[in-house]
Amino acid sequence: MAVNFTVFEQFKAVDGIRLGVAQAHVRYANRDDMVVIELAEGSSVAGVFTTNAFCAAPVHISKAHLQQTAPRYLLINTGNANAGTGKAGFANATRSCELLAQATGVKAAEVLPFSTGVIGEPLNMPAFERGIPAALDNLSADNWARAAKGIMTTDTLPKGYSTQFDVNGKTVTITGISKGAGMIMPNMATMLGFIGTDAGIAPGLLQSWCKELADCSFNRITIDGDTSTNDSCMLMATGRSGVQINDVASPEAQLVFSKLKEAFQILAQAIVRDGEGATKFVTIEVGGAASQKEALDVAYTVAHSPLVKTAMFASDANWGRILAAVGRSGVQNFDLDKVQIYLDDVQIVEDGGRREAYTEADGAAVFARTEFRVRIELGRGNAREELWTCDFSHEYVTINANYRS
Amino acid sequence: MAVNFTVFEQFKAVDGIRLGVAQAHVRYANRDDMVVIELAEGSSVAGVFTTNAFCAAPVHISKAHLQQTAPRYLLINTGNANAGTGKAGFANATRSCELLAQATGVKAAEVLPFSTGVIGEPLNMPAFERGIPAALDNLSADNWARAAKGIMTTDTLPKGYSTQFDVNGKTVTITGISKGAGMIMPNMATMLGFIGTDAGIAPGLLQSWCKELADCSFNRITIDGDTSTNDSCMLMATGRSGVQINDVASPEAQLVFSKLKEAFQILAQAIVRDGEGATKFVTIEVGGAASQKEALDVAYTVAHSPLVKTAMFASDANWGRILAAVGRSGVQNFDLDKVQIYLDDVQIVEDGGRREAYTEADGAAVFARTEFRVRIELGRGNAREELWTCDFSHEYVTINANYRS
Repeated sequence: MAVNFTVFEQFKAVDGIRLGVAQAHVRYANRDDMVVIELAEGSSVAGVFTTNAFCAAPVHISKAHLQQTAPRYLLINTGNANAGTGKAGFANATRSCELLAQATGVKAAEVLPFSTGVIGEPLNMPAFERGIPAALDNLSADNWARAAKGIMTTDTLPKGYSTQFDVNGKTVTITGISKGAGMIMPNMATMLGFIGTDAGIAPGLLQSWCKELADCSFNRITIDGDTSTNDSCMLMATGRSGVQINDVASPEAQLVFSKLKEAFQILAQAIVRDGEGATKFVTIEVGGAASQKEALDVAYTVAHSPLVKTAMFASDANWGRILAAVGRSGVQNFDLDKVQIYLDDVQIVEDGGRREAYTEADGAAVFARTEFRVRIELGRGNAREELWTCDFSHEYVTINANYRS
Repeated sequence: MAVNFTVFEQFKAVDGIRLGVAQAHVRYANRDDMVVIELAEGSSVAGVFTTNAFCAAPVHISKAHLQQTAPRYLLINTGNANAGTGKAGFANATRSCELLAQATGVKAAEVLPFSTGVIGEPLNMPAFERGIPAALDNLSADNWARAAKGIMTTDTLPKGYSTQFDVNGKTVTITGISKGAGMIMPNMATMLGFIGTDAGIAPGLLQSWCKELADCSFNRITIDGDTSTNDSCMLMATGRSGVQINDVASPEAQLVFSKLKEAFQILAQAIVRDGEGATKFVTIEVGGAASQKEALDVAYTVAHSPLVKTAMFASDANWGRILAAVGRSGVQNFDLDKVQIYLDDVQIVEDGGRREAYTEADGAAVFARTEFRVRIELGRGNAREELWTCDFSHEYVTINANYRS
């Protein structure tokens, strides 16, 4: 029951990127569970990874490999996160890179590994021996749709996006896939995002863009506040379009960045739309904050409040719960009298109290929508942030309490 | 379906404390919803209040009155929290103190007001005009059990505790009531605790004890992380037993403190046992932390994780979810290899990975208990903290999504 979610079908190939997909039987039979992404020589890759202190072996290795050389392959498996697996997990992730390197004639350090799935189980290495050659066998520039399915765990729908636009008479393509924030069997949400473009982007710029883009997309979505050990978001630029971005201030750079931002946000929001048990897609906007941190603290406190989330599920515009969440967000020297809260175009809190003209019917009408915005104005400064979340339903408890059945 | 909860019935009167209870019709008819606690002259009162930045009018006024003079009356209503009510809320809370003061011949500043219930609605002042004289009419030292019911909101059971013990041949009594952490109609959990003793405790010591006692009881329980605008915990000492505590290091002081601690913890834990939809009572203990803050950060992150809480509901000893919550708790420079996790006597994580001898059956056997302890050893230092929480069930969603129906 994803919220306003249409499966994307019009994938455009990105010149310089091919994808191979295989049934490797990492954990389950009869499903695609291994994806190889091949990058043409001369491509650049940047990444943003989980901040969880216990990040998984493949995250450590991908970070290390990214420091050493330009990657040629990304190797993604579902079914097993290779997290909490100690030294054996490192050895297995390294071995998986070696297997792909041997099969393709590159160095192991030119392979980035990504895993998502069960925590604490040894990685099934025969699956890699089986899956890697099978995936290489069907490498194709037109495999994005199948790859979007191949990286799913408990996602109910595959997530993808593609766009093409003109830069000085040349066509630039951006295509990406993501997977998400269902809690995966049997452990947790892992967010993965892989976004490719045939624009050329200088490596230093690519890394700073990737961080900036993740911070307004994958780092601004939250289902339940749990951060995975394996979250990774990768931005790949092949340069094959002939468009090269070196000067961040150029109109070309600004156009490419804005298109990348659109792609990142759509792919990230798709994860929320397909959140476990989600029935509402909600934007939380906090303005008038004294700092970015303050705006985010308030936004996340509201977005994570089980009381607010169950009220959203119930279509009950419970402004007291929102106000109380704002109040416990840790902001110092709060002046309640300056707080305004809006549900879409309906102001419910004015100067810290219920707006006199507000009626429950007005608020309930907004909360009954499948998509709406909660806007909180603090009246303390100029910082503004927004993030996306979903409600908290019976289905969420069912999924997360019953996943082993 | 409170967890291992027995309604306390053996209340002992506390010399110097009388309680009056009335049906004031604050919000509902046909239920006790107003309680007056009368303290004999010479009594001392200390309090700990919510840290929510948007604390309610009665909290502001109780804090201010406590600074001015020794209280003679506490006035508690349910049905309306008088929070988010602006200047009118302050005027109404002040007026309620004046009404009780006029009826009893004390000063308004000698009255402490407490409210719990709906947020953002004007206080029903005719209810106070009706309820205060009615409550004063039945003032009695033996009214604790009725008062425990009179302060309930969506609590399913009244919460109380009483104990008597000997100090140098004199009998000291401690009796208290609390109400809790159901989300109250229609807004949030408010915790209230009122604990009285006939020991005499010097006012400065009483305040430092009250803080210390709340920090190992009411401030160590969590249902869903939401902090109310109205939480208050009050400690009242009449001195009528003839036992006077002035020297904190004396054996008498240590005995009285330990008995108070027992009372505070039982009253606080009762709130968790009766938590909305709770089916498990869980102790989260974090040891080997570098600081108290670090221990609490880890413990609260685990206790608030919806993934951990739904796993508890499902009796699924999902150590990956616990480990991931530990990892995102914000502790810097974490060494995963030093982390040990125990479920009661079963070690599930050894040196950061699944313990080899651990079996899912062992873990599931612990999680199937209605009470168990999750102990997390960080191997970083000597700080240790524990707190109490409950699981996250379908019933929680039902209660919080449907409260208006």
